[in-house]
Amino acid sequence: MSRDWNFSAGPAALPEAVLKRAQAELLDWNGSGASVMELSHRGKRFMELAAATERRLRELLGMPDNYKVLFLQGGATQHFAQIPMNLAPEGGSADYIVTGVFSRKAVSEAAYHVDARIAATSEANDFLSLPPREQWTLNPAASYVHYTPNETIRGLEFHDIPDVGDVPLVADMSSNILGAPLDVSRFGLIYAGAQKNIGPSGLVVMIVREDLLARPPRPIAKILRYAEQAANDSMLNTPNTWGWYLAGLTFDWLAAEGGLAVMGERNARKSALLYGVIDSSNGFYRNDVERAARSRMNVSFVLHDSALDALFLTESEAAGFIGLKGHKAVGGMRASLYNAVPEAAVEALVQFMRDFAAKHG
Amino acid sequence: MSRDWNFSAGPAALPEAVLKRAQAELLDWNGSGASVMELSHRGKRFMELAAATERRLRELLGMPDNYKVLFLQGGATQHFAQIPMNLAPEGGSADYIVTGVFSRKAVSEAAYHVDARIAATSEANDFLSLPPREQWTLNPAASYVHYTPNETIRGLEFHDIPDVGDVPLVADMSSNILGAPLDVSRFGLIYAGAQKNIGPSGLVVMIVREDLLARPPRPIAKILRYAEQAANDSMLNTPNTWGWYLAGLTFDWLAAEGGLAVMGERNARKSALLYGVIDSSNGFYRNDVERAARSRMNVSFVLHDSALDALFLTESEAAGFIGLKGHKAVGGMRASLYNAVPEAAVEALVQFMRDFAAKHG
Repeated sequence: MSRDWNFSAGPAALPEAVLKRAQAELLDWNGSGASVMELSHRGKRFMELAAATERRLRELLGMPDNYKVLFLQGGATQHFAQIPMNLAPEGGSADYIVTGVFSRKAVSEAAYHVDARIAATSEANDFLSLPPREQWTLNPAASYVHYTPNETIRGLEFHDIPDVGDVPLVADMSSNILGAPLDVSRFGLIYAGAQKNIGPSGLVVMIVREDLLARPPRPIAKILRYAEQAANDSMLNTPNTWGWYLAGLTFDWLAAEGGLAVMGERNARKSALLYGVIDSSNGFYRNDVERAARSRMNVSFVLHDSALDALFLTESEAAGFIGLKGHKAVGGMRASLYNAVPEAAVEALVQFMRDFAAKHG
Repeated sequence: MSRDWNFSAGPAALPEAVLKRAQAELLDWNGSGASVMELSHRGKRFMELAAATERRLRELLGMPDNYKVLFLQGGATQHFAQIPMNLAPEGGSADYIVTGVFSRKAVSEAAYHVDARIAATSEANDFLSLPPREQWTLNPAASYVHYTPNETIRGLEFHDIPDVGDVPLVADMSSNILGAPLDVSRFGLIYAGAQKNIGPSGLVVMIVREDLLARPPRPIAKILRYAEQAANDSMLNTPNTWGWYLAGLTFDWLAAEGGLAVMGERNARKSALLYGVIDSSNGFYRNDVERAARSRMNVSFVLHDSALDALFLTESEAAGFIGLKGHKAVGGMRASLYNAVPEAAVEALVQFMRDFAAKHG
C-alpha cells in the first residue's frame, strides 16, 4: 500500500485512521457477521449507529436543541432546487449572495422554484473578493438569504457570519463545514455535500431550525420534503448507510483529535504556511484573492508563466501529490486543505513548490 | 472475521468476493495512492471506472444502443416523484399497476406531479396475487405505464413482461434487476435502488430509452432532469462514487460467475428449494402468494402459530442467520435470495427450518 498526499477538492482525502478502521471491519462490522453495507437501516445495530453519529455531530458543533439533523442524498446541487421548494411558498422570493461558481449555480437551479434575487455579487471582480455587507440589497420579505461561506474554486471564504436580520440565513457549507468552530444558532439552515470534510460522496448533511420545518408544505412528493425526513429520522426511504457510517467514523476521529477548535487552528496553520510560500515567491506563484477573504480550505494559485503548468502537474504527480490541478473554470493550481489533509502533507507540498520555483524561476 | 448467512431484504448481502476486493484496495485503489472514495469523479481513473461499469452492465443485459444508463441518487422513492416530472407534461396522466406496498407508494408520491391513475390493483386480495392482464384498464393516452415487477414485502413477482402496447412501460426493478436475463427493449424506463441486487444503498441505476429523454422538459431544476444527467454522463454534480465502484465490482463478479442466465438458474433453484420446504411442512410454514407469481427473490412465509415467531427469530439469529424477520406491514418471516446469497446459505436455512419444525411441530 502506498498513500500519496491528496489535495483533491472533492471527493477528497479521508482521515487515514477512518479508512483503516473501515477496512478492518468491512466484512464483519461490530460483530454483526456482515458488512455495515449489508444490514437493514431499520435494524437495531444501524439505528444505534445513526443516532450515535447525530449525537457526535451535535457535540462537535455544540448544536442547540431546536435544530434537526438530516442525512440526505443528491449532493448540494439537488438541494439548490429543494431548498426553495421547502422554505419558500410558490411565487415567493429569496435572496442570494453570489461569490463564485457554486453560489451562481445555486441561484440558477433555485430560479426554477422561487424568485431567486441576487442581493449581492462579486462577479464583476471575477469572484476574487466578497461583496461588502453594506452593499447588499436585502429584501426583508425574502423567505431566506442564501450564501456560500466558502467557494472552492477560487478559494474565497467568509470569515464572519453576515448579519441578515430576521430573515433565516441558509448556507451551503459543503467545503468548510467542521473546518473550525461554528455558531449554529446564527443559521436557519446549513447543508453540506459530505465529500469534502465529512465522508464519501452521495451523502448530504443538513442542519435545519425546527421553525423552518413548520412552514406550509408545497404540493410536492413527501420524499422531497425536509419536514417528512425530519419526522422519519431521515429514513423515509433507505438512506446512504455507508456514507452515514463513514461520517460517524469521521466525527469520532474529529472528537479524538480534539474537536473543531483544534481543527480550526490546524487549518489556519496549514493555509498560512501555503499562502506564505506563495506570497514570498517573488511572483513565481500568485494568489489574487482579497487577503481578508482567502480560504483556509482551498488555496488556489497560478504560476507566473502558465507554460509551466503542465510541468508542475507532471512533476507534482511524480512526487506523490494528487489533485493539484485547478478547476477548469479558472485554470492554474489548487490545493484543498480539508481536515483530513495532515500538516505533513502541506509541509511536503511547500517544499516541493520551493524546489520547483528554484529550478524553474 | 465471522460471516453470517444474510437474508436481508435491503440493504442486503453483497458478494463476498466483491467485499474482499474492496477491502484489499480500500486505502490504495488501482495504484492511485488513494481510496477510490478520495478521488475526483472527473479524474481519468474514475472516469474510466465509470465507463467500464456502464459497458459491463450493457453486456450483462445485452442492452440495445438506444438506451442510456444513469447512475443517480435518492433511492427508488425519489424517482417515484421524479419520473412523472420527466416523462409526463404538467396536467398529464400516467397509469399505475398496484401489486404491493411499493407500487402503492409509487402512486402516492407520483400523484403530486401527475394524474396517477390506478389501472389495476390486487389490493383487495391483500397483494397475494397479480391482477390479470385482461382486467387492466389502460389509458392509451397515458404518458407511461408504471409497474413493480417484484414486490419485496409479500414476495410477488411478474414472471413475464406485460404487453402495454405503444405506451412506454416503466418498471421499478429495485428487487429483481439482474436476477435473471431481461429483454430491455420491452421497456421505456427501468430503475432500481442498488441496495438489493447491485451494491450499497445510496445509488440508483436507471436505464432509459432515448426518445423519452427528448420529451419536453418541465420547468424544474436541471439536476432533476434525466436528460441533463444523460447529457452529462450522470456527472451533473458529484455522483455516489463508492456506490458506482461497488456496482462495477458486482457487475464484474456477475460476468465471472457466468452472467444473468446462470444467475436466473441459480435463483430458480434457491427459491424452489425454499418453497419446497415450506410447501412440504404440513402447514407448519405457509406461503399464501399465488403460485404462478411467487417471487424468486423474496420468499415470505408465516409459521402456523405466530406465538413461535419470536423463538424462530431468536434461534435463527443464534444459528447465524441475519434478516429473516418479515416486513412490519405483514409480519411473519421473509428470506431474500438476491444474487449475492449463495446456494449454501439457502441449504443451511432449509435445514434449520426443518429442524425447527421437527422440534416445535
